[in-house]
Amino acid sequence: MKEIITVSREFGSGGRELGKRLADALDYAYYDREIVTTLAAETGMDPNYLDRKLDQGSLLSSYPIHYAQSFNTVPDTATSILTLQTRLIRKLAENGRCVIVGRAADVLLEDEHPFRLFVYADQASKLARCRSRAAEGENLSDKEMLRQMKRIDKARAEFHDILAETPWGERLSYDLGVNTSGLDIRGIVPSVAEYYRNWLRCR
Amino acid sequence: MKEIITVSREFGSGGRELGKRLADALDYAYYDREIVTTLAAETGMDPNYLDRKLDQGSLLSSYPIHYAQSFNTVPDTATSILTLQTRLIRKLAENGRCVIVGRAADVLLEDEHPFRLFVYADQASKLARCRSRAAEGENLSDKEMLRQMKRIDKARAEFHDILAETPWGERLSYDLGVNTSGLDIRGIVPSVAEYYRNWLRCR
Repeated sequence: MKEIITVSREFGSGGRELGKRLADALDYAYYDREIVTTLAAETGMDPNYLDRKLDQGSLLSSYPIHYAQSFNTVPDTATSILTLQTRLIRKLAENGRCVIVGRAADVLLEDEHPFRLFVYADQASKLARCRSRAAEGENLSDKEMLRQMKRIDKARAEFHDILAETPWGERLSYDLGVNTSGLDIRGIVPSVAEYYRNWLRCR
Repeated sequence: MKEIITVSREFGSGGRELGKRLADALDYAYYDREIVTTLAAETGMDPNYLDRKLDQGSLLSSYPIHYAQSFNTVPDTATSILTLQTRLIRKLAENGRCVIVGRAADVLLEDEHPFRLFVYADQASKLARCRSRAAEGENLSDKEMLRQMKRIDKARAEFHDILAETPWGERLSYDLGVNTSGLDIRGIVPSVAEYYRNWLRCR
């Protein structure tokens, strides 16, 4: 089996940073924006638009039930992009030794038995992280920011749940659940990498 | 703040073993049966009976709602034992540097901000673990064993949920969630201990 880590995360929990640092620590490839850039090149679509749509699962969020029942009820563009994305993720994972963030890669690659990490945090920590990373001039109130976080997580969950048997965020869908509340993510990377190495040996 | 680790776990997931090994690795005190032995000595009750009742939260399982509203509706013996247990857990934790397994210690000690570990596994792994540890002559079918596991976890959840704001097993109730499915628990102890040390530094 290949060595693959998938990172699922609550918006604002620092999952992306943890994934990137984990890839660096293990000398693995890291796939996140790369997936979007490639898809944008293949479809001719705007990478920023694609990123927002794919990362948040919102390409599908209006058609969750229909999608599960029949591809025909999903607009053609959405279907093609999702098919392309699935194919691309499988291709990137072919060589193993990689970290893939989001995009339901944990489910799409389940036959490869990846190490499935879930990263989460309490609201205060997620708010603080979002504030510190907000673009200049972006003046959302706490309430608006919380609403946005909730909306994105909901879309991620919906996208995941169309494809998976166990729900997004539910412990049995993951091998390790990391609560980053108040933590310096850099500090926990070595122990998560070590945990993963051990998990690999037992697999 | 004191250095305290609480271990909550699904029945059969190996949480107790992980807790014990973690205590050894960190040179911490380990409290599990010790709580029962002390209580038995104080109340004159049979330690095996107490263990079953307290560990599974079943002292309370028939009175969850009343207990939350008023102590008076819980039979005196149950109340006294739970009060004694709470007092004992707080006393044991006074010196810090300890691992406490089960008994809703994560909630009882929340003012001390303990490191809250949750240990879980898939059904197959839990069944295999229970089989390998079953007493000689204990011939439960898989179905009976699963029913027993479910009953115990349900009682644990009920006991926890009377005292806590976030539900038993819910990710935000814990700092780290460890899926032991198929793992050799000995192997993951060093990385969990290291993760904890880092968590301590950031706290």
